[in-house]
Amino acid sequence: MLCSSIALFGLSGGATVRSAVGGGLPTVAVRSAPSMAAVAAPSSHAPAASAGGDGKSKKIFVLGGDGFCGWPVALHLSDIGHEVVIVDNLSRRKIDVDLGAQSLTPITPAEERVATWNGLSSREPIRFVNLDLALEYDRFVQMMREERPDTMIHFAEQRAAPYSQKTPATKRYTVDNNVRATHNVLCGIVESGLDIHLVHLGTMGVYGYGNSGGEIPEGYIDVQLPGGRERSILHPAYPGSVYHATKCLDATLFQFYAKNDLLRLTDLHQGIVWGTNTDLTARDERLVNRFDYDGEYGTVLNRFLMQAACGIPLTVYGTGGQTRAFIHIKDTCKCIELAVANPPEPKPDWGAVEILNQVAQTARVRDVARIVSDLTGVEMQLTENPRNEAAENELAAENELDVSNRKFKMLGLEPTLLESAAGLMTEVTEVANKYQHRVDRSKVVSKAYWNKERAAAAGAADAVSSIKGVGATA
Amino acid sequence: MLCSSIALFGLSGGATVRSAVGGGLPTVAVRSAPSMAAVAAPSSHAPAASAGGDGKSKKIFVLGGDGFCGWPVALHLSDIGHEVVIVDNLSRRKIDVDLGAQSLTPITPAEERVATWNGLSSREPIRFVNLDLALEYDRFVQMMREERPDTMIHFAEQRAAPYSQKTPATKRYTVDNNVRATHNVLCGIVESGLDIHLVHLGTMGVYGYGNSGGEIPEGYIDVQLPGGRERSILHPAYPGSVYHATKCLDATLFQFYAKNDLLRLTDLHQGIVWGTNTDLTARDERLVNRFDYDGEYGTVLNRFLMQAACGIPLTVYGTGGQTRAFIHIKDTCKCIELAVANPPEPKPDWGAVEILNQVAQTARVRDVARIVSDLTGVEMQLTENPRNEAAENELAAENELDVSNRKFKMLGLEPTLLESAAGLMTEVTEVANKYQHRVDRSKVVSKAYWNKERAAAAGAADAVSSIKGVGATA
Repeated sequence: MLCSSIALFGLSGGATVRSAVGGGLPTVAVRSAPSMAAVAAPSSHAPAASAGGDGKSKKIFVLGGDGFCGWPVALHLSDIGHEVVIVDNLSRRKIDVDLGAQSLTPITPAEERVATWNGLSSREPIRFVNLDLALEYDRFVQMMREERPDTMIHFAEQRAAPYSQKTPATKRYTVDNNVRATHNVLCGIVESGLDIHLVHLGTMGVYGYGNSGGEIPEGYIDVQLPGGRERSILHPAYPGSVYHATKCLDATLFQFYAKNDLLRLTDLHQGIVWGTNTDLTARDERLVNRFDYDGEYGTVLNRFLMQAACGIPLTVYGTGGQTRAFIHIKDTCKCIELAVANPPEPKPDWGAVEILNQVAQTARVRDVARIVSDLTGVEMQLTENPRNEAAENELAAENELDVSNRKFKMLGLEPTLLESAAGLMTEVTEVANKYQHRVDRSKVVSKAYWNKERAAAAGAADAVSSIKGVGATA
Repeated sequence: MLCSSIALFGLSGGATVRSAVGGGLPTVAVRSAPSMAAVAAPSSHAPAASAGGDGKSKKIFVLGGDGFCGWPVALHLSDIGHEVVIVDNLSRRKIDVDLGAQSLTPITPAEERVATWNGLSSREPIRFVNLDLALEYDRFVQMMREERPDTMIHFAEQRAAPYSQKTPATKRYTVDNNVRATHNVLCGIVESGLDIHLVHLGTMGVYGYGNSGGEIPEGYIDVQLPGGRERSILHPAYPGSVYHATKCLDATLFQFYAKNDLLRLTDLHQGIVWGTNTDLTARDERLVNRFDYDGEYGTVLNRFLMQAACGIPLTVYGTGGQTRAFIHIKDTCKCIELAVANPPEPKPDWGAVEILNQVAQTARVRDVARIVSDLTGVEMQLTENPRNEAAENELAAENELDVSNRKFKMLGLEPTLLESAAGLMTEVTEVANKYQHRVDRSKVVSKAYWNKERAAAAGAADAVSSIKGVGATA
């Protein structure tokens, strides 16, 4: 008998998302999104007692709570009645300084956005602590002991694949920061002696792309070993960048600490997040969420929407046949709420981590570009791919991606689908349009080349110096 | 068709080592080892032209070349005609200072042992550079550019599982040092632009113990995925300590850099090394190799031999039914020689790393103790297991370990087997006897407990403070 995949939540049915946006593309009209009602929007008037869906208000550290996902999640958890402490070293803002780029939306300083929220909300005030998890271990453990959180959500990692491939300095920063931050969190939980549930933002990218040939399950996969032995194993990692590799390293550390120290760990393998604001960040301009459009941090759908707003052709890398998983920022908030409400039980004899794929659907990049093009009338433009994806594209021309998201569906997520998200896309283009005077067009195209061959193929004047690490911070 | 496991060396036959020392134990007489002639001993008179077996003298950096494996390997490679530069931050010696322990053998300072060798050898002098790979990246890259090595051998990691589990400080040091050192080496090779073959010392422990149920192959395993899809995957990792986890992280980084940057990488998954000296370190007392007997660094067979020499009962953890892989230090030297002589070709479409199991044979711990007991007349004593192995022992009472070492056998390794190694064991007990005035008996038993349950079970007075990190350096 194969060991069955872990099903902590008593899942019996299931759902699989496949490339839902295919050859015959629906034309998406520019109108308010009829699907928005289906998105489980946070209720700002829910009583504190309903926090997390299990009737319990929790004390939650949001590590990296100043970032693109962390900030709206912090507000969402606060709004449904949890006590939230944001822990962040503001590294994302500092990287902007080094890159000479900035969020398209003018984000206020961390203290100001927190104070604004606390002025508007009737909930327990959010607190903000400036702390570097990779470097300030003792202070972090002391803080855990004093505050005794129930849950920690770990967004505190450098999260851009292109940035992680840009120069030796950015490769090394990504490994040094991410691995140490994750290990310090795990080691600190054990040292504190507290029963803390850790929820971690991983990525679909740990599995690689176009490498599976079948459905990507949620963490574990049943395999048959030589001699007919059957086994459930952690799905093989096949990272495509230094950034993705650090998330694979995290997974190995989680497996060990779950087994050895019986920690409660949830690892969420997220797709590409799009959108800007949630209902909560839209309440006041000082709460606005960051919007990255530069070549290093701007992810594909948001980049297309920004390009469309500015009348710049939509830049599709390579053939655009890359299939990726997507999720709207509102759904990210809902998924975190669900994960927080459902901590796994420790499993001493197995060491299994609760792993969920945090995705709404998959789609090909060029099909996503086509939706945006149809919506806005702006052209698509194929460009040289700076990423090391050539071999895969040559082999299969285009990759498939077939992802299970059964667990979140069973927990009640009703994901926002691209086909019916015209209203949300319009909201993004409106944001992009409003702030397009802040766009630096020279920053839109990625200057990060995966290796020296990619740099040469792109004919980048600064490619070699970039790869060699000269001007590493530029 | 399943992808076949990689066979860079054109291997067609094979060899598997199983628990060769079983229930019916041979009585080993105390006499000179008849098997020593079978050990591929380094020839100190081989011409330089035969270095590495492919007629080419290479320039080799031995990273961590001051350690237990690094030092005899550095001498061996020098002796067969390679140009050797030792790079080491002397951290192993500094950890001894913190632990209040020391090598049983009185090792001379790094400069003195190198100078002694250079005085005795007619080869190109070995050079020694004190450099911290985790912290001095720029200096390391500069050194690569100036020296242009052909090969680097990476021993520069904290290598004791008990030390890695001892306190929060030692857990964090193990992760911070090992992951950063390995990533800096990989990143630095790419930045240098040089075609350097990296040979890395991994461990059998990346696979876990008692977890496979079948033969552990060399790196890759053929599996059948759901739906009947067949695939060759990196053998699943199942580390049993923070130390072992870092070697799993290394493996993921190697996979990525082999795929993305076409580096030539060889990862050697080594068993437990035993023995003290090689013919070369025995040439002069100032060349003596280190011998660890303390609870944190002393590995099992050497610890038994030292205990026997001192008339201390042989301490067997738990049931002693744990099966482990073993290799003599002389065979380690030979294996590294063979790995250096056979760099793999880059594989752009696959990213496979050359992985070899560097083991001579497997044996149960209590059977190894029985051999030593029969050889020396000293009793065995079962003690509480400080390691987190209970569940496995409860499940299966004793674990099996079935390991392939086909590749090194095909390359010409004739491993030293325990059954016929009485002479080598006697040599170790002679060394232990000679220096037993240096033994601190209070250091022999491990004070590192895998988790708080293990510490409590052992009734350790200092267990809780140790786990909590109080007196972390003690």
